[in-house]
Parts: sequence; C-alpha cells; structure tokens
Amino acid sequence: MPPRSPLAPESLPTLPPVAGVRLAARACGVRYQGRTDVCLMAFDPGTTVAGALTRSLTASAPVERCRKHLKGGKARAVIVNSGNANAFTGRSGTASVDRTLKSVAAALGCRPSEVFIASTGVIGEPLPDERITSALPAMVDDLRDDAWALAAAAIMTTDTFPKLVTRTATIDGVAVTINGIAKGSGMIAPDMATMLAFVGTDAKIPAPVLQALLTRGTARSFNCITVDSDTSTSDTLLLCATGRAKHRAVKSVADRHLVDFRAQLEDLLIELACLVVRDGEGAGKFITIDVTGAASDAAARRIGLAIGNSPLVKTAIAGGDANWGRIVMAVGKAGEKADRDRLRIAIGGVTIAEKGERRSGYDEAPVATHIKGRDISIDVDVGIGKGKARVWTCDLTHGYIDINADYRS
Amino acid sequence: MPPRSPLAPESLPTLPPVAGVRLAARACGVRYQGRTDVCLMAFDPGTTVAGALTRSLTASAPVERCRKHLKGGKARAVIVNSGNANAFTGRSGTASVDRTLKSVAAALGCRPSEVFIASTGVIGEPLPDERITSALPAMVDDLRDDAWALAAAAIMTTDTFPKLVTRTATIDGVAVTINGIAKGSGMIAPDMATMLAFVGTDAKIPAPVLQALLTRGTARSFNCITVDSDTSTSDTLLLCATGRAKHRAVKSVADRHLVDFRAQLEDLLIELACLVVRDGEGAGKFITIDVTGAASDAAARRIGLAIGNSPLVKTAIAGGDANWGRIVMAVGKAGEKADRDRLRIAIGGVTIAEKGERRSGYDEAPVATHIKGRDISIDVDVGIGKGKARVWTCDLTHGYIDINADYRS
Repeated sequence: MPPRSPLAPESLPTLPPVAGVRLAARACGVRYQGRTDVCLMAFDPGTTVAGALTRSLTASAPVERCRKHLKGGKARAVIVNSGNANAFTGRSGTASVDRTLKSVAAALGCRPSEVFIASTGVIGEPLPDERITSALPAMVDDLRDDAWALAAAAIMTTDTFPKLVTRTATIDGVAVTINGIAKGSGMIAPDMATMLAFVGTDAKIPAPVLQALLTRGTARSFNCITVDSDTSTSDTLLLCATGRAKHRAVKSVADRHLVDFRAQLEDLLIELACLVVRDGEGAGKFITIDVTGAASDAAARRIGLAIGNSPLVKTAIAGGDANWGRIVMAVGKAGEKADRDRLRIAIGGVTIAEKGERRSGYDEAPVATHIKGRDISIDVDVGIGKGKARVWTCDLTHGYIDINADYRS
Repeated sequence: MPPRSPLAPESLPTLPPVAGVRLAARACGVRYQGRTDVCLMAFDPGTTVAGALTRSLTASAPVERCRKHLKGGKARAVIVNSGNANAFTGRSGTASVDRTLKSVAAALGCRPSEVFIASTGVIGEPLPDERITSALPAMVDDLRDDAWALAAAAIMTTDTFPKLVTRTATIDGVAVTINGIAKGSGMIAPDMATMLAFVGTDAKIPAPVLQALLTRGTARSFNCITVDSDTSTSDTLLLCATGRAKHRAVKSVADRHLVDFRAQLEDLLIELACLVVRDGEGAGKFITIDVTGAASDAAARRIGLAIGNSPLVKTAIAGGDANWGRIVMAVGKAGEKADRDRLRIAIGGVTIAEKGERRSGYDEAPVATHIKGRDISIDVDVGIGKGKARVWTCDLTHGYIDINADYRS
C-alpha cells in the first residue's frame, strides 16, 4: 500500500448526522480481504436526488442504471462497492445490477427504481454480487446516522486517506447540514477506475432544483480537476436531499433563500474535489491554475485543463523547475483562442512573461523557491477576453509510475 | 546524457546524395558545447517546397516565418539550429529570424523569402543569432552532397540516436531518391521543444502537388504518432524537391506517374515518424495501435490517439500488464461514436474482449508473454463503421520522469 499522500489534510473532520440519512459499511470480500468494501446509504421517504455521471461512451452498468433512475428524482438508498467496477461486463453486469437493486429494495421496503448503485475497481471481471446481497440484511440492521467515516473508508480503493467534508448552510433562517464523501481520482492502482462522491443534506429541495444546483457546482469543482487526463467508466457524483429540515419550500434555483446553500454546496464540492487531487497517484505537489482573459469561461477551463494535463508541465513542477516555456506550450495546444503576444504568465504570484516574451529583469529566485514548495499557483492571462476559470491538479512523479506500471510486473 | 534507446535500430543507413541538395553542419555554440548545433541545407535553383507546421497558437517565430514563405513555394535553403527554440521571444525573436535569413540569402545569392528556418531548444530565451550568422560563410564553403548524417546529428537535442531514412521511387520510368532526417518527438529534455523533419528529393514536382502529397503523407505518419500528448511550439516538417531528375513533368497529385513516389514518400514518412517514437522520452516499448470499424478514418485516428495518449494504458504496458480494461476506458473517453457492446479488443493478435465483455475462456498467458516484449500491438474494432487508422506510441516509464522532472532538481 502506498504511503499516505504528503498533501493529505492534517486531520479528518468528524461529520455530524444529517437528518434522514443512515449509513452502514461491511467487509464483504468482493475483492479485498480484511477491510470494509461495501457501503449502504439509506434515506428517509421523500428524499430527492441529483447526479453527475461520467460522459464515457463505455460507461459501466451501474452508471447506466443511475442515469435511468435519476429521471425519477427520488432516492431511498445508494449501494456502493469497491474492488470491482462492474464495467465492460456485458449482460452479466446488467444482471448483477438488477439482483443487487432488487435485494436492497426488498431489505428497505422501497422500489428498485429508488435505489442507486456505484461500483469501483477492476474492469471486465464479473461482479460477485451475491457477496453483497447476502450481507444486506445485516447491513440494514447496522444503519446509523453517525457512520459517515465508515462509509468514506469502505469506498476507498487505493486512496491513501478517506475524504470527508461538511458544511452548514441557512435556508429561510433554518440551518441545514451538507455532508460529502469521495474516493480517489483517476485510476489509483492498476485496474482501479473511478471517482465516486456522495453528498447528503437534510435540505428540502425538489429534484429539478437540486439537479440545477449540482450541475452548476460540478462545473466549478469536479469538472475542474485532473490527475492524469483519463476518464473513468464509472465516475459518479450523487446529491441526496432528505427534506427533513423545516424550512419553507423552495421552488426554483433562483430562489433567494438558496443563496447561502448554493454557496456552501459549491464550497463543499470544491473542497471534496481538491481532496481527490491531493490524493492523486504519486502526487507530491498541489497545483492551482487560474486562467483569466480568455474568450469565455469554457475556453478558460479548457486552457486550464490543457496546462493541468500536460505531462511536461507536471513533471517540471515535480522536479521543482520553474519551466514556464512549457506553460506557453500548453496554452498553445489547448485549441482555444489565444494571442501569443498578449499572454501573461505568473508562478507564485510573480509575473515571468508578458506581451509575448520574458519580462525584462525577471528574477527567477522567488519563483524557484515557490516551486520547491507543496502548494503551487500558476496564473495565466490570455489577454483577449473576460473568461476565467480555476483548475486544480497535481504533479507527475515517479510515484505515479510506481503505482500504475509496477503493480503486476 | 540518457543511454541509447533500447528501441533504436541496430544500424544507421548511409544516405545517398540527392541531386541538387548540399548540406553542412557546424558547432556554433548556440547553447551546447563540443557538438554540432547548426545545419545548413542548400538547394539548386528551381527547388519547390511543401511543409507541415505546428498548429500551436503559441508557435515560434521560425514557424510563423516558414508559414509565410511556404506560400511562395520555392526553397533555396533551410537553416536549422538546436539549443534554442526562438519561441515566445517577442520582437527580438522576429528580428533574429530576419537577420539570419538575410545572412543566409546573401551567402547563397538568393532571396530571404526562399530561405526556411527551424529552431529547437529552450523556450523564452533570446536567440544569439550572431553565433549562427558569423559561421555562415564557412558553412557555405563546407556544403557537400554526402553530409546527410552530419545534418541529422546537428539537429538533435537529447535524441539518443540520429534519425535517417532513404527510399527510391520511380516516376515515369526514372529513378528518384527521397532522403529524410528528423529529430525527437515531444520535449525530450526540460526546455527542449520540437519535432523537426526535413525531406529532400530530386523529383521534379510543382509546389502545389508537392504540398498535396506531403499533407496526405503527414496525415498517415507524423500526425499519427504521440509520445506524451504535448504539442510543440516549433514542429516543422519540410519537403524540398530539386527537380534535377529527368522525368516528364507531373501536373497533379492524381498523375499516374506519381503512384510509386507517393507510396515511397509515405513509407519514408512513416519510418521517420516511427523512429521519433522509438526515441520517445524513456521509451522501453514500441506500440502499434490499429483501430478499425470506426465511424470515419478521422474518428479512428482520434480513438487511436486517445489510447496512445492515455497515461494509464502506457504505464500498464510499461509494467508488462495486459490491462485491457484501460483500453476500454480510453475508447470511452475519446468522444467518438462507439458502442460498448460491439467493441472488440485484441493484444498481440489475441482477442480478449468482444461484444461488451471478456471473451469466454480467455487465456491471458500468450498475451502476457507478448506484452513483456519490445514491440506491442493493440487492435481495437469499434464495430460501428468502416473508418480505420494506425497510430504509434511508446510506453510511459520512470525514464520519462527522470528526463523531464529530475533535470534541474
């Protein structure tokens, strides 16, 4: 097992209960031995749900099923296993999903269409679903409202730390809680796929409004991170709202009562997404890339991701080398409108290049010091418009190769 | 200096003269010491030229100038230096290009608009062009028709071997020669940018026809290779035809006399491009990816490049792991039409997965043996159309990180 990421937070928060959410985790031996690998989240009747799923065209059977169930907008449970992604498993994968959902629905007394499912792990191996379904009655007995940490641990694959975030928000003068858990980005060990995240709140929000909030929040968080540019077959982010909080009904995403909730949700999603980056394979440095002056926000995001995905930018930072020429290169390859002669690049707040060339009298010393640290900031002003975006990534190190190449050798 | 690539050819070919082409190389100390770093290629009057240049929006000053000069269709010289890319150098970079072209034109008695220029090396540093121009009179004296190997060595940055290919073709019953040299792909050491390739022939082909032949050949060769997905600011491929061969005039790309030349040129470009991959940073394995059954040839190429650029596919192969699930993942993220349930994947000629799942009775043993070798083949049939493409790449190893991260640390 790889050592704990040097970018891990110093301590883990204790998540408070969310009214209407209960959780359980169990060691079912899906693939791993001696650790929990299945997590059940149960929600009170009336819970609404929103989701963001991988855009992969080879998406897993669980992802396809979640896409379908999201149309109903209601959730009573999420069942998650690690160790096996149930991806590229053909008809047997679909049958596994059917059996699992039916068992969860029977154990909780709800409809299968109100149950959501996520799987993470090896691709192409049939899922031994009986190991999950046979444990369900005991898991239902175990359900508790203070088991968020157990759930966060059970969904890990080779994450080096569990990822938990909590926020409180006020809606119509009433305090609501938002809790979120996630597991690692990219593919943290050979065969391991998937970024999974589950967020629960006691706010009472209709499903279409919840979806609009999540879509907006995802665009600024999980869709702005990258570890290795590879898209999982199984990426799943679900947001469930139990409606147990006693605030007035909200009807639209523009409701002024939602201002604080929207901000807190976005803040939680960003923290959760950044935790995923901080546990990126082999990560030694956490990199924040701010792009301004692009043709649009979307263009700024694509330029930010081109920089964040560039192996040459990432290896330079790993080596503590303020190699800004590689940032110029990455902007150039992004395919978005840019003007070489208006580009401005700063590292650690120090402007290095502007107007198409290195700044006269540029002193590399403060930049060299900054780039040897753990938290690196890169600012790029494209100089042609008002679009902006912030993107997070990590460096590319020998650790990444160790984890991804040396596993079975 | 990194050791010679294990994928290097066992011996280097000796290139025959091409009538109308003379070359010289010299150690000018642009950045490196104790090695040649400037190369001059001179062509007889009447030479036509075609080119393929980087699509980067932060292209270097030499690339911008070549783009302009290609419109004239005539070439009398190419001047190339290694050690400094003259990229992101603002007005001083343009002035360097001006001075260099003017000096070459004066030394050879031609117009500056008939001189082409390419630079490779550090980005963002002013080019000390006087080190090049002051050597020009001596280089003109040195020009010889048997100096292809000297030229190939002078354009290297941290390539581990020089890249030379030759072919003969018949046009209208007359034998013509095609010689090509290239330097490494991606960015082989920190600050080093650029894939450069120069091809010379004594065929007599009008510039528009030459351009059509080169565009077609590039689409199937240099545009089908990848090492690390990063696009240089300086990629330059030039094809010069001196017209010294005594065949009948050709007027269009469809001329039946061009059939053999077209095939030989494409073959040479593919071999040259594959040599670049074989010298990819840290490369230990050479990977050929054949994609069939895609919606179009362009879609097949994009799927092939998604596989070839995936860090997870490349690290799995580096580790000798037949991790076909990562190939499924890469097909899914390519953004091209695909049907998970019709996908077929083979490694080393052995079908592993078909119809959306692992083949029943799949025996990993022969695939595991294949993937531990040096030359790896991957076949993907998307199952929805007739589009096909072949893409070449190398694996992603600790050597890549060594070269790109540890350089200045």
